Amino acid sequence: MYKVTFLPENKTVEVETGTTLLKAAEKADVYINSLCGGEGLCGECRLQVISGNARADKTAIGFFSSKEIKDGFVLACQTKVNDNLEVMVPARSRIEMEKIITEGVHVDYSEPASVDLHKEKAESSAALQPLVAKVYLELIEPTLSDNISDIDRVVRELHRKLPYKDYEITLDCLRSLADTLRNNSWKVTATVGKHNGLGRVLRIEGGDTTGRHYGIAVDVGTTTVVVQLVDLVSGRILGVEGNHNLQARYGEDVISRMVFACGRGSLDALHQAILSNINSLTKVLAKENSIEMEDIDCVVAAGNTVMSHFLLGLPPCSIRLEPYVPTAMVYPQILAEEIGIQTSPDAIVEVLPSVSSYVGGDIVAGVLACGLADRQEISCLIDVGTNGEIVVGNQEWMVCCSASAGPAFEGGGMKWGMRATKGAIEKVVINDGRVEYDTITGARPRGICGSGLIDTIYELQRNDIIGPDGKFDLSHKSPRLFTDAEGPQYILAFAEETETGQAITITETDIANLIKSKGAVFAAIKSLTDYIGLTFDQLQAIYLAGGFGSSLRIDKAIAIGLLPDVEKSRIQFIGNSSVTGARMSLLSTAVFEKSIGISRKMTNIELSAYPPFMNEFIAALFLPHTDKRLFPNVKL
Amino acid sequence: MYKVTFLPENKTVEVETGTTLLKAAEKADVYINSLCGGEGLCGECRLQVISGNARADKTAIGFFSSKEIKDGFVLACQTKVNDNLEVMVPARSRIEMEKIITEGVHVDYSEPASVDLHKEKAESSAALQPLVAKVYLELIEPTLSDNISDIDRVVRELHRKLPYKDYEITLDCLRSLADTLRNNSWKVTATVGKHNGLGRVLRIEGGDTTGRHYGIAVDVGTTTVVVQLVDLVSGRILGVEGNHNLQARYGEDVISRMVFACGRGSLDALHQAILSNINSLTKVLAKENSIEMEDIDCVVAAGNTVMSHFLLGLPPCSIRLEPYVPTAMVYPQILAEEIGIQTSPDAIVEVLPSVSSYVGGDIVAGVLACGLADRQEISCLIDVGTNGEIVVGNQEWMVCCSASAGPAFEGGGMKWGMRATKGAIEKVVINDGRVEYDTITGARPRGICGSGLIDTIYELQRNDIIGPDGKFDLSHKSPRLFTDAEGPQYILAFAEETETGQAITITETDIANLIKSKGAVFAAIKSLTDYIGLTFDQLQAIYLAGGFGSSLRIDKAIAIGLLPDVEKSRIQFIGNSSVTGARMSLLSTAVFEKSIGISRKMTNIELSAYPPFMNEFIAALFLPHTDKRLFPNVKL
Repeated sequence: MYKVTFLPENKTVEVETGTTLLKAAEKADVYINSLCGGEGLCGECRLQVISGNARADKTAIGFFSSKEIKDGFVLACQTKVNDNLEVMVPARSRIEMEKIITEGVHVDYSEPASVDLHKEKAESSAALQPLVAKVYLELIEPTLSDNISDIDRVVRELHRKLPYKDYEITLDCLRSLADTLRNNSWKVTATVGKHNGLGRVLRIEGGDTTGRHYGIAVDVGTTTVVVQLVDLVSGRILGVEGNHNLQARYGEDVISRMVFACGRGSLDALHQAILSNINSLTKVLAKENSIEMEDIDCVVAAGNTVMSHFLLGLPPCSIRLEPYVPTAMVYPQILAEEIGIQTSPDAIVEVLPSVSSYVGGDIVAGVLACGLADRQEISCLIDVGTNGEIVVGNQEWMVCCSASAGPAFEGGGMKWGMRATKGAIEKVVINDGRVEYDTITGARPRGICGSGLIDTIYELQRNDIIGPDGKFDLSHKSPRLFTDAEGPQYILAFAEETETGQAITITETDIANLIKSKGAVFAAIKSLTDYIGLTFDQLQAIYLAGGFGSSLRIDKAIAIGLLPDVEKSRIQFIGNSSVTGARMSLLSTAVFEKSIGISRKMTNIELSAYPPFMNEFIAALFLPHTDKRLFPNVKL
Repeated sequence: MYKVTFLPENKTVEVETGTTLLKAAEKADVYINSLCGGEGLCGECRLQVISGNARADKTAIGFFSSKEIKDGFVLACQTKVNDNLEVMVPARSRIEMEKIITEGVHVDYSEPASVDLHKEKAESSAALQPLVAKVYLELIEPTLSDNISDIDRVVRELHRKLPYKDYEITLDCLRSLADTLRNNSWKVTATVGKHNGLGRVLRIEGGDTTGRHYGIAVDVGTTTVVVQLVDLVSGRILGVEGNHNLQARYGEDVISRMVFACGRGSLDALHQAILSNINSLTKVLAKENSIEMEDIDCVVAAGNTVMSHFLLGLPPCSIRLEPYVPTAMVYPQILAEEIGIQTSPDAIVEVLPSVSSYVGGDIVAGVLACGLADRQEISCLIDVGTNGEIVVGNQEWMVCCSASAGPAFEGGGMKWGMRATKGAIEKVVINDGRVEYDTITGARPRGICGSGLIDTIYELQRNDIIGPDGKFDLSHKSPRLFTDAEGPQYILAFAEETETGQAITITETDIANLIKSKGAVFAAIKSLTDYIGLTFDQLQAIYLAGGFGSSLRIDKAIAIGLLPDVEKSRIQFIGNSSVTGARMSLLSTAVFEKSIGISRKMTNIELSAYPPFMNEFIAALFLPHTDKRLFPNVKL
């Protein structure tokens, strides 16, 4: 037996030789992230060994730098206890219990509170037509003069309650039907989806179970995966959880993951990774809300075209190379068990349709969420994820394009970047060398999320700490500005203020990355409107979607040159519109069907084949822009 | 090593201790029936041990009488060689090689040659619209200006060749699509079914495989199972094979099988038995015709309601008891792999719809085959199997009923009864004590089939050897008439004439059974026409279906009181119309869809709830009938 002490909580526990640190932590009631279930696949369970003998194994090499390995970082799930140990649990490895219990964190993954147009009201639940219906049936017992078959009896009653002209039923469901009816006194609940215009009877179970009727809306992002659990009876969001896309192990961006899937690697690894994400998030949500996974009857997922292919196990190999052809853009309806989503095995799974190889169902979801395709006036959707996608149009026409933006706004590739979750610096004001910041849920800072980064760049420029080229003015005197091996950087939070005990800084490289990202997005907007022949003024509304964090300030996003310099009131931040559109589809068959129409109607412009784009991009690599006339209202 | 000699061929082979007799026979090139593949389930591989030490094991008890066990009967697959043996292979256990090679036997399971209305002509192949289509596509390779998804490219081309407005595709098929297209220079063959009005893309494979396109039509009878292999390109029947329904192990009739499935037994055993039947017949047919089972793309099966339930694995338990409710009457389209039919795994399986618990898809198939529902004049279909089913009607209305007839006409429950296959006595004439008979294919007699039995009864009565009550006139002097422990019987073929070396006789019990069978069928016809208010004369045509053997003589069937005494030319024998209707559906989507309409349109009369039926039955237990006025033209 050895003693293991977990810091900073200072909890000590005794375990047998060979126990993994993950099990030891469990025993000590220290909750450590382990998305992959202890398989050494996700790299989430990193610990730092402070004293005692324990070394990183081969598995760890994929997750740690050589410096980190030297500093004693190990994966808890892969490290066995063979000595008395003292280990530090870094903030990012902890599962915060309050995160699981409280409601506070939810908003960070979903739309900002100000955007209420997409939220189903509880009072509108009577009008809900979710993609899967649950109907309670009290059947008349058969007699000699009314001895139609069991399924005809069910369908006869369904005709009174649902709008479908005809129904289809699976063989499995038929096989148990006779017993279910007779063992439950002919009182049953039918779960019915829609498939090719017919009612699709998915399950018939005894008694009235209509009160237990849930669905999940999934945003399958390249960087993060977000799941909302929705009560299909009331339309209410019961909870939302997100995690890092486990596919990151096989490549940081979609291109490298496609290379892995189509080369020596395996498509199945990427397919399974995304299923692990969805299943682990769903499990947490089900537990939080004390519901059974089996009561989840419907799944709607939205993602870019490559992610949608990975989710369904379709090879994305020809997407990567000219002429960029996906296997499918409208995806078949499948059942959860066909791909291993751990809801009800016969839950219907719909993946929102794509427009092209590089404009996917997440954008179609965004169009649903902002209502662009429902109105006569022309508006614009800008979705900033790892790619930036732009849609301009109205109810009659839509044109879209896509540009590689990099993961900067989601916290990727930045020294202290992080998702918009607890402890992320989301708001920054710098005045006279003093830095004031807000963090999500007010916790001690752990990193900076998208909205915090936009604020920081804006404030650094306003205070003349950086120039319009994003370079630090090294003549600026401040204890916060210093230069080390990583180059010049500016301290936002000193070591003593932070959760990790390390200073949180922004480096010149971070700023350069961010300028590239905002430049790509702006150049895409400019190119698309020029292509159509519109000026920014002709856009009646601009919807900004993305995982910036809910406190994004539009004026600052304009001031750094991410968004066009139009009347601020025309711009609305709508958060994660991918999950919002997926949820709207989950709650309405009509909305889901509209998504197919949107995907068919939208015209895709290939920016790589549009020469002016590169000039626009280069011109946008300044704060706010090389052409100041484009930003007449920005004063710094 | 021991020597085993197989009689009557007198082939000797040496095998190691413990080898089964089945393996030894294989080594000796003696072909023994083994439908179950040597599992001890089918009882087809019976041998008689003449000398040497070998005893029946426990398995055999289900298949042999104690007398047979005493006589040395064993199952070849369950008996191991531990002595030098001499064994006799009875005729019924042999696989006749010529049966597999020649075409001659085919007609015995199918319609008589005279009935040509249901045979698709080779020249009509241009008009064929089989239930599953195979289409060769030469696709245009994608370019940047034409980079729609792979499946959209396939569907665009399908729209030019097939009538469907939209298509659905399985996830499996989508998963391999990208590679199939690119590895085959965009030249592929699509296999497309129809499902809920849409084209259902089942498979896409490289190159032009449209020449390899087969289907099977299956008659799932209670006693026998018949499979026709059909070339879906030409519409030609390539072969037909039949065997005993392996479910017989669990009960001779549908009632006892339902009791087995719903009581202590198992539904799955009956489900698997019928699949073994179909798979073994299909295997033989594929081998005979040198085709791959994987090139069979479509299966249409017809059977009574209970058999259809067993085939699909649906519980038939509530069919048996009032109010006689099946799980379904229209069955879902499934894929072969869903239930384990060993064709192409994605072959479409359709089961023809039922009308009621006791009038099934075999009758709907019969209506398709005789064209009753296509004409204005009223006609009648009489299908004599284990049950007798009657349909009267025209294109506007149809009424049907069902009566238990027993298996006598199919050779069941008779001392020397057999199916209409090689060696069956199918034609009998008795004059002055001389018996002349014909056998199927002219082989030495092995037993008597339905048409032979009808002839025999007729001839016995015409020669005053039996009276109108079916009892032998024991004062009749003939070396052929004798009485033993089984009662009075009449020799049709003496021992020295037969294949087995035993005399073939008809007993008084056989005759009584046959009279009960024909009485039930006639009473049903009479009750149904009375119920509707028609006389026999108002039936413009009477179609007789059943496994009697193709040389059935209508006048003798009338003379024994099986069929109404109408103008002989109005009656047509149409053989196994169940398999014919299944084949017609296989070859035409429109015909298959008509079957659904027929099943919905037909009104079922429950004879058990129709009091006059029992009186009619009792009145019909005479030759030809107690009321001679019903048979004015019958002179004996």
